Amino acid sequence: MDVGEKSFRDAVDAKIVETCPSDLSSASIREIVSLVGSVEAGTGVEFIRMEMGIPSLPAPTEGVEAEKGAIDAGVASKYPPIDGIPELKTAAAEFAKLFLDVEIPSSNCVPTTGAMQATFAIFMTACRADSPKKCVLLIDPGFPVQKQQLETLGVEYVSVDIYAHRGPEKLKAVLTPIFERGDISTVVYSTPNNPAWMCLSDEELEVIGSLAGEHGAVVVEDLAYFAMDFRCDYSKPGVPPYPPTVAKWTDSYILVFSASKMFSYAGQRIGFMAVSPALFKRRFPGLKRWFSSDEFGHALVYGALYALSSGTSHSAQHALAAMLAAANGGQLDFVAPLREYARRAAAMKKAFLDAGFELVYSMDAGEPLADGFYFTVSYPGMSGDELLRELLRHGISAISLAITGSTRRDGIRACVSLVEMVRVKELRRRLGLFRESVGKHCEKY
Amino acid sequence: MDVGEKSFRDAVDAKIVETCPSDLSSASIREIVSLVGSVEAGTGVEFIRMEMGIPSLPAPTEGVEAEKGAIDAGVASKYPPIDGIPELKTAAAEFAKLFLDVEIPSSNCVPTTGAMQATFAIFMTACRADSPKKCVLLIDPGFPVQKQQLETLGVEYVSVDIYAHRGPEKLKAVLTPIFERGDISTVVYSTPNNPAWMCLSDEELEVIGSLAGEHGAVVVEDLAYFAMDFRCDYSKPGVPPYPPTVAKWTDSYILVFSASKMFSYAGQRIGFMAVSPALFKRRFPGLKRWFSSDEFGHALVYGALYALSSGTSHSAQHALAAMLAAANGGQLDFVAPLREYARRAAAMKKAFLDAGFELVYSMDAGEPLADGFYFTVSYPGMSGDELLRELLRHGISAISLAITGSTRRDGIRACVSLVEMVRVKELRRRLGLFRESVGKHCEKY
Repeated sequence: MDVGEKSFRDAVDAKIVETCPSDLSSASIREIVSLVGSVEAGTGVEFIRMEMGIPSLPAPTEGVEAEKGAIDAGVASKYPPIDGIPELKTAAAEFAKLFLDVEIPSSNCVPTTGAMQATFAIFMTACRADSPKKCVLLIDPGFPVQKQQLETLGVEYVSVDIYAHRGPEKLKAVLTPIFERGDISTVVYSTPNNPAWMCLSDEELEVIGSLAGEHGAVVVEDLAYFAMDFRCDYSKPGVPPYPPTVAKWTDSYILVFSASKMFSYAGQRIGFMAVSPALFKRRFPGLKRWFSSDEFGHALVYGALYALSSGTSHSAQHALAAMLAAANGGQLDFVAPLREYARRAAAMKKAFLDAGFELVYSMDAGEPLADGFYFTVSYPGMSGDELLRELLRHGISAISLAITGSTRRDGIRACVSLVEMVRVKELRRRLGLFRESVGKHCEKY
Repeated sequence: MDVGEKSFRDAVDAKIVETCPSDLSSASIREIVSLVGSVEAGTGVEFIRMEMGIPSLPAPTEGVEAEKGAIDAGVASKYPPIDGIPELKTAAAEFAKLFLDVEIPSSNCVPTTGAMQATFAIFMTACRADSPKKCVLLIDPGFPVQKQQLETLGVEYVSVDIYAHRGPEKLKAVLTPIFERGDISTVVYSTPNNPAWMCLSDEELEVIGSLAGEHGAVVVEDLAYFAMDFRCDYSKPGVPPYPPTVAKWTDSYILVFSASKMFSYAGQRIGFMAVSPALFKRRFPGLKRWFSSDEFGHALVYGALYALSSGTSHSAQHALAAMLAAANGGQLDFVAPLREYARRAAAMKKAFLDAGFELVYSMDAGEPLADGFYFTVSYPGMSGDELLRELLRHGISAISLAITGSTRRDGIRACVSLVEMVRVKELRRRLGLFRESVGKHCEKY
């Protein structure tokens, strides 16, 4: 059986009816994963899988050896401290200094069960700190699961797709009226961001930081793809340039780091958050309704994180501590292997453009977008639902931009990490068949 | 410096003022831990530490080797499935069959970042499933952090101290009016329980299961201390007796297991929950407000657990799978090493009784309470606050029963796990000094 043939199309269509009976473009990442898995099992055809952001590089030896060593030393039987083992707290603070040029005390650097747990704990705390402020501002497009977290917590949010509002003036114009409503407790964005791979500039972060400061909001900077704007070399500890960060522009911020992409350590669910000194110590009377303390840092760590899982894997903390320390000392160049993603992105984007696709998000504040972990494409005249269905029928999987807070409901997000360079030729062949088939059925579109 | 001397008392008193300025009996476990740590550091006197339930036995080789092997095989870089690796799901289902005589499909056995994350996810789901039912029933005394979880979620709860209501008739009499209010969504208890070490009988569990079934409530059975009622031998797979369980008496239950105590694996934050088939598939329209699905199991796993941490440590899942499989196969007798806790409890209880203390919870439905991980004591004429303070001044730490939902506000909970048998002599000496000092200051009490 080959992609695009009637029998394969029928198999895909049947699974779509089974798993996503309504609109395919509202299907979650996990639903697409499960759909593709069962089509692959049923047809024997291997998909070009672009739906999920899974690292495909091996974990660094420094992490693996430290983790095994910690298990040998007996950590498996001992509860980790809720706020993290000292080695990790120290290495995290040094990392923030050496790779971002930001001073945060080690006491304010706290490990979490992945960045996911960090944002959940932050939403539990920051969104309730200042009672009249009931709303979170999501600078979109962004990570769909953060919306899901807010929904499960019953916290309101407002989303702004800033693609058409880049640069400090336009950004200020679109964000100011939202802050002026007076109900924004927390601002969240990622940079580079998922899915559009936009990287916020220093001037744009100044706008966000100043507005948040002026209106008393907490800024959450999600650095899941830290140092992966490959247009700049951010790989040298203590050497400029440093990635732009809001930490330069407000004293009320939390930086969220994940080992998943940065160190290809997704399996162990480990990350950390670094809370600004002023925010950590700030007292919010509103917190007393939910936690035993009104001090932000205390409520976040001993209230939210303790209730969520009573700390995070002891051995994984040792792994992260060792990887950070090796990066800080210059023994581990964690950025070098990640450049493979940029090479794949360049080759895959070209394959899509050659087949008549267009980039949805193509520019980054006046410059061409960097090649990174994700890119976004659309096909002239097709809706997101139609495009995703037709790609699946040709053995290519992705997710719809509709679930990311993007206003571009005709596009899809492609993740490059699972597509090795040797598969790009097959991607080209399938996109050729796609184009032919869409031509044949053009009366439909 | 010695315990009980004026300089030591002053050091303790100063730290109490610093860390717990209000009522000492409302201090959390973590606050006592921190207080004791700083007195130890300041005075050089090592406490008899009974405040925290930390396993003190080494982790089983089966877990340690499987975890290191999984890391060597490369799991650190790969996201684990949200619902767990197949090996763990299968071993967990077999464990429920062989050690509890309960049939639960492997699809319904899901790993969590410790039992703590399991109860958090369950509260997020079960307490919201049936909208008019807004309240959780806690069968107390119980684990203080479950109350903290409910408070951070903004979920109401009602607590009943059942010590004076043991046996099926009395239990039914005290629980029925609460269920008849019509607002109980979820019932939670642990057995053996923390802190009173009561073990619910088959007849009592029938009462709880029937009432819950009749009133449409979900029962959460917290088995953190599974098989640790050492009066019975629950150590043989597939061989009776089995611990009593509510799974025999209702079709709407969740069993929560933790590797922390059972396998002395607390450091890796790993446990699992097993959801009854009827509950897993049940649809609750109320869930749609919070999750994308109204099916209980789907909302619990792909809604709550996904949002909380996107799964749990990949290597720790392999460790737990290996330990469960070894227990199932009879190669690992996980109960045998845990009997050390019973030996310590017997010796420590005797030391307290000889010094004039009384057991707060001494009977278990007509039989003398089993020796286990915790016991509870009071001292005639002293309040919980006074008792805890005076014990701390004599180098003995514990927590107040007041924070556990107990109605006995004069008692303390003692955990045996950190007190090795060789320290019992020193415990006796300090309790002697305590008694002398209390005699001298008896005008105070």
